[in-house]
Amino acid sequence: MPRSKAFEEKLVLEKARDLFWERGYAATSIQDLEKATGIRRSSIYNAFGGKRELFNRTLKAYQSFNQDVLQKFLSTATLLRPALIELFERIIGLPVAERKGCYVVNATTELAAVDAEVLRFAAENRMMFTSLLKSALGDALHRGEIKADSDLEAQANYLFVWYNGLQVASQTGMPGNELRKAVKLAIAGLEWEVNDRKEEC
Amino acid sequence: MPRSKAFEEKLVLEKARDLFWERGYAATSIQDLEKATGIRRSSIYNAFGGKRELFNRTLKAYQSFNQDVLQKFLSTATLLRPALIELFERIIGLPVAERKGCYVVNATTELAAVDAEVLRFAAENRMMFTSLLKSALGDALHRGEIKADSDLEAQANYLFVWYNGLQVASQTGMPGNELRKAVKLAIAGLEWEVNDRKEEC
Repeated sequence: MPRSKAFEEKLVLEKARDLFWERGYAATSIQDLEKATGIRRSSIYNAFGGKRELFNRTLKAYQSFNQDVLQKFLSTATLLRPALIELFERIIGLPVAERKGCYVVNATTELAAVDAEVLRFAAENRMMFTSLLKSALGDALHRGEIKADSDLEAQANYLFVWYNGLQVASQTGMPGNELRKAVKLAIAGLEWEVNDRKEEC
Repeated sequence: MPRSKAFEEKLVLEKARDLFWERGYAATSIQDLEKATGIRRSSIYNAFGGKRELFNRTLKAYQSFNQDVLQKFLSTATLLRPALIELFERIIGLPVAERKGCYVVNATTELAAVDAEVLRFAAENRMMFTSLLKSALGDALHRGEIKADSDLEAQANYLFVWYNGLQVASQTGMPGNELRKAVKLAIAGLEWEVNDRKEEC
């Protein structure tokens, strides 16, 4: 039985994404993409429109997947503090050799300054991300974890900036134990109803 | 009178750096470099060894310049809090169109995962940066601004992560007023002797 077109497309997008992720957009040639995806240049053009359109599709697929995972993770968290630690641990718990950064961060730093489409995508991604964080902070506020008079939007933005920094710092080979102590300070910096920087978290 | 060799070299490095900074390493061709620096390919090879060696030299020159500026700035600061605000304001105070990120952050996200030399450079740069921050935090501790029993290394790492995040978030077009509120939280997250999140900073 032949594989479905949607299945093929999903696989091609994943293989292309992994290549762009490893090398960056500019360093990835259409020949590299042919080799990695196993489909010919003509098929890439027919199915996606070309290298740039394929790249855009991989970014959107990555964002959509991340959004689903993050939304589910945050909305089912029973407490915000351990949920944030777990979220950050997914980045800093990786061995240095496996830290390839965030696909969207890498696209932003490579292209946002010279490409209005990528800048727009990066801004939309930020708004999706901060909106999910704000909602999780709102849930935490209702549970009495976060101070009632605190600025949820500022805290969501603060966590977004922090998340981006963690992705970059982890790519400089910063040891996990050092990152973990910095994460502890970052999480303590939220406006918790009861905050104790020294507590084990 | 002909310009000195050192003067020429400094100018070439600056022009090459600006091009790499705008486009990224992979997207910059040797032809682009010839055009931007005004010197021929053969001279680029003779003077620097090639595109990659030229790139390495621009990274080192950038780091060395940054180190001097940061060291001078932090060691002459009379209070740490306003100094950090001023440092972060240099990034977030720029109009969106002028935010091209940090040259080292961009090199890290483009190349550190696939290039041991860039990973090593990024790690050295992080250690230089965190060492200067730790020293500034130590000065602040001696002045009574920072708690005597606080972990200076963790706070230096925390600020380094934050700085990286700010460079990326600013490149997503995040408005200055939103970044400023997030910065306020980040600075409040340090272990100040007297901390008031609500104070005007």
